[in-house]
Amino acid sequence: MSESEITKTPRAPYYAVIFTSIRTEGDNGYDAMSDKMFALASQMEGFIGAESVRHPDGFGMTVCYWQTLEGIKRWKQDAEHQLAQQMGRDRWYRQYKTRICLVQEDYGTDLFE
Amino acid sequence: MSESEITKTPRAPYYAVIFTSIRTEGDNGYDAMSDKMFALASQMEGFIGAESVRHPDGFGMTVCYWQTLEGIKRWKQDAEHQLAQQMGRDRWYRQYKTRICLVQEDYGTDLFE
Repeated sequence: MSESEITKTPRAPYYAVIFTSIRTEGDNGYDAMSDKMFALASQMEGFIGAESVRHPDGFGMTVCYWQTLEGIKRWKQDAEHQLAQQMGRDRWYRQYKTRICLVQEDYGTDLFE
Repeated sequence: MSESEITKTPRAPYYAVIFTSIRTEGDNGYDAMSDKMFALASQMEGFIGAESVRHPDGFGMTVCYWQTLEGIKRWKQDAEHQLAQQMGRDRWYRQYKTRICLVQEDYGTDLFE
């Protein structure tokens, strides 16, 4: 998952899941799983989009935007995603934090021009 | 501002400001101003910490954590920060989006070990 576009989100309120992580050394199947999870999440009800960037030193952030908290919960409990989460803990992440957020307000350049 | 640590945030609820941006070409004083703004924000009441990462293609994300919405508003209105915001619009960012969020829940590896 390496999106280099700012997500076109709807008018607030909506939800954001901030996932900050520090990777272990080596790929170990991470990139393929990351692509697969992004494709899978994209098909979930309520998924809006994601922004993601990682530094070569291993530090990275992915923010996924969702229309509802229910969508976030269903995604967290998805069987394939749960397997990926377990592999993340065992293999891919040295450290991580997930933050579930309500986006109350937003502003910026007009992304639709 | 290039922090490569996961911020030690307090028990939720607290606030997050997600700033996603795409940089223009060249530095043009950006790095020095970014360091200065981080130092300045760090002294503001209610500031908890920040996580930041930018891809070489110009796409980057900075998330600042705050204890209160009032702290976020005071920082937005700070005179030096307002000048930096104007320079950002004029010079440094091709596109950006700021999202003000209430962090309702979080979990992850124990960052205090």
